[in-house]
Amino acid sequence: MKSIVVLGAGRSTPALIEYLATHADAPHWSLHVVDLDARSLAAKCEGYAHVIPVSADLSQAEIRSEWISKADVVVSMLPAFMHPEVAKECLRQGKHMVTASYASPEMKALDEEAKAKGLIFLNECGVDPGIDHMSTMEIIEKIRAQGGEITSYESFCGGILAPESPSNPWQYKFTWNPRNVVMAGAGGAVKFIQEGLYKFIPYHKLFRRTEFVSIPGYGRFEGYANRDSLKYISEYGLDGIPTMYRGTLRRPGFCRAWDVFVQLGATDDSYHMEGVASLTHRSFINSFLAYHASDSVELKLMHYLQIPQDSEMMEMFEWLGLFDHEPIGLEQGSPAQILQHILEKKWTMQAEDTDMLVMWHRLFYQQNGAEFRLESSMVCKGKSAQNTAMAFTVGLPVAMATRLVALGQIQEKGVLLPMRKEVYAPILRELADWGIRFDERLTKLSD
Amino acid sequence: MKSIVVLGAGRSTPALIEYLATHADAPHWSLHVVDLDARSLAAKCEGYAHVIPVSADLSQAEIRSEWISKADVVVSMLPAFMHPEVAKECLRQGKHMVTASYASPEMKALDEEAKAKGLIFLNECGVDPGIDHMSTMEIIEKIRAQGGEITSYESFCGGILAPESPSNPWQYKFTWNPRNVVMAGAGGAVKFIQEGLYKFIPYHKLFRRTEFVSIPGYGRFEGYANRDSLKYISEYGLDGIPTMYRGTLRRPGFCRAWDVFVQLGATDDSYHMEGVASLTHRSFINSFLAYHASDSVELKLMHYLQIPQDSEMMEMFEWLGLFDHEPIGLEQGSPAQILQHILEKKWTMQAEDTDMLVMWHRLFYQQNGAEFRLESSMVCKGKSAQNTAMAFTVGLPVAMATRLVALGQIQEKGVLLPMRKEVYAPILRELADWGIRFDERLTKLSD
Repeated sequence: MKSIVVLGAGRSTPALIEYLATHADAPHWSLHVVDLDARSLAAKCEGYAHVIPVSADLSQAEIRSEWISKADVVVSMLPAFMHPEVAKECLRQGKHMVTASYASPEMKALDEEAKAKGLIFLNECGVDPGIDHMSTMEIIEKIRAQGGEITSYESFCGGILAPESPSNPWQYKFTWNPRNVVMAGAGGAVKFIQEGLYKFIPYHKLFRRTEFVSIPGYGRFEGYANRDSLKYISEYGLDGIPTMYRGTLRRPGFCRAWDVFVQLGATDDSYHMEGVASLTHRSFINSFLAYHASDSVELKLMHYLQIPQDSEMMEMFEWLGLFDHEPIGLEQGSPAQILQHILEKKWTMQAEDTDMLVMWHRLFYQQNGAEFRLESSMVCKGKSAQNTAMAFTVGLPVAMATRLVALGQIQEKGVLLPMRKEVYAPILRELADWGIRFDERLTKLSD
Repeated sequence: MKSIVVLGAGRSTPALIEYLATHADAPHWSLHVVDLDARSLAAKCEGYAHVIPVSADLSQAEIRSEWISKADVVVSMLPAFMHPEVAKECLRQGKHMVTASYASPEMKALDEEAKAKGLIFLNECGVDPGIDHMSTMEIIEKIRAQGGEITSYESFCGGILAPESPSNPWQYKFTWNPRNVVMAGAGGAVKFIQEGLYKFIPYHKLFRRTEFVSIPGYGRFEGYANRDSLKYISEYGLDGIPTMYRGTLRRPGFCRAWDVFVQLGATDDSYHMEGVASLTHRSFINSFLAYHASDSVELKLMHYLQIPQDSEMMEMFEWLGLFDHEPIGLEQGSPAQILQHILEKKWTMQAEDTDMLVMWHRLFYQQNGAEFRLESSMVCKGKSAQNTAMAFTVGLPVAMATRLVALGQIQEKGVLLPMRKEVYAPILRELADWGIRFDERLTKLSD
């Protein structure tokens, strides 16, 4: 009997529970899910005999410690900043740990101690980061095994609305943490390498330096660069690669319109605005426009950012109610907090909405004197506004990784990412059974 | 016999020494100037019998403490971050203190203690901040005394090249801390109020939202907003004023060209670039431009930022050598540090260069039912590349403020700015004798 304790029940809990509770070896496990919100937790655990919901306040160290003590494997779905605390307690108590979050420097600093104690702290096991790493490593190792040399790696992932959703000029709603979406790309320059040259994009140019991606059967997408593409070069074993670029996908038109918020300064989180309680959507936008005695907010915006009057961007802003005299409904906040609040009014998933998770890799490689292009893509559609593709593709690989750890099938110890075959191969195989599959298109370019 | 100890001998030391050493009451004072650089210090003190140069390392707390103990008034011309340390030691030893720097929150926190001990910590006594506050307060109090109500306050100040200097397409060289110039406006949104509406400008729009200013006899200038115009509303006693705007002056064309650096991300100080030792001016610029197999850096820059081929901006960049294959000459650095290093090659004052300090205020006020506009401007030209207007206009008011403190002519105690008549009136009167005078132009607009 192995004990799995899930700390925090977020959006991806249903997929996590579904996998672990319905898997063939479920009877051999005890599965506790701990969260403060008893009602929502009970609903998520309902119908699964082996899953025990526990209502407890995990912000308290003693309570975290107590539940960690009951586990063989701890799954931390808490906010990312809490993972290092959980990890330190797992170190003290000698427990394995799995997360879907980026391995922070604080987490990585525990590597040696974890190794010494024979513990596995497996991070970045959701979709992005997670499935992106796993599918990438499978491709890279396959090309290497054939004797190919990789010269370029590009990878994009994004969660957007499925085309079946009701019409929405942004083709977008929040399916994950809204704050992360509003702050995407902020807080530092984007870094990548192209044809051997290091390239840097400042935040205020990020949403104008985009790339287009087409996926057969799903149409066109537009991607903006992730913050630091360089950091995975070594993790992927691609040292010396001339081109490495990772990014986030949206539907075409999103980035150009989002850039308007960036240009205005409406995504700034560094200061609190004045007189927020009396702001409306319209006066919020006007705060970023020069004073004019008679020109309208719309006219000033179009003039300032050179938006043509008939641009569909203006429709996108009107659809959001940006120019309405509607009170914001906050007492205080930074521009980013206020913008998020306005967006949540329209970008919250409704019953009729379904989402779509899109992942796309493109590699160029040389083999036996010829050049090849390999594209690999995965699209997963959500079942409903609650059962989103985003939550499903995060929760499922976390659950699979957790099972591998519980079964003792991972030999490597320490603070890990899912880069090794012993981790990614069984997970990718199982994901395919659950419908999460990659299509590959290989093209020989020259010889 | 009063003892004045100047900590740190920077560019403004000559003016400071000249005033204190040649003033009628000089024989009643002892004046020590303490700095690590013995040779440069000796040159600055040469010819003044009452001025004693002291070579000592003021980064050491005991040495600072020792020299503070010898003073009645301490003048701190050290880097601004050291002022709070100096101030705390002055508190312990019961000494007055004068600086030319912004009163930091850390400095302001000492107000109560300083008051309790009857000490004066007088800050912002240079030119900007300094003469701007003094001349502003004189105008405000004069208008108030006449029964006028101020509805708008704008103020700009800038140090640029004098027209007598050799031709330079930027009409600019560094006359003060180059790092402050490169980082101007960075690190947070600009805030001001116009016609009763709070306005915010993000850094990446700052140099495109400029205002033009004309000064009779000196031509046109262009100003960009300072970081926080709101913080002086209360200091100036202007609570409730509908328009308040403070900014920095350059010659027209400067801001548009500087904005190119901002747009590229070349003023970013948040990360270190890769492979700096092998960068050239040209490859530095190319780091911020998209990869292209054949287009030149110049072409890519013009295309990216929509700069016409015949724009004088391209001449300005060529004059700086931005497109040259010249090695940067640094081993590492952030974009901002590298840009500063490149600029210093061309923007360092040469023997034939002279500078110019320009200050301009414009106020609107209502009086007896009529509306008035008052413009007040001051222009001061440097004598040589060494004796700059910048250094002169910083050092002189600091010296005058120091004398007032030494003579016990300031009644108010605590952490002060030069806002009260007992401070600004005698200083402005003396500054006029030294040629630093404001011209006023009053216009009646309506009645």
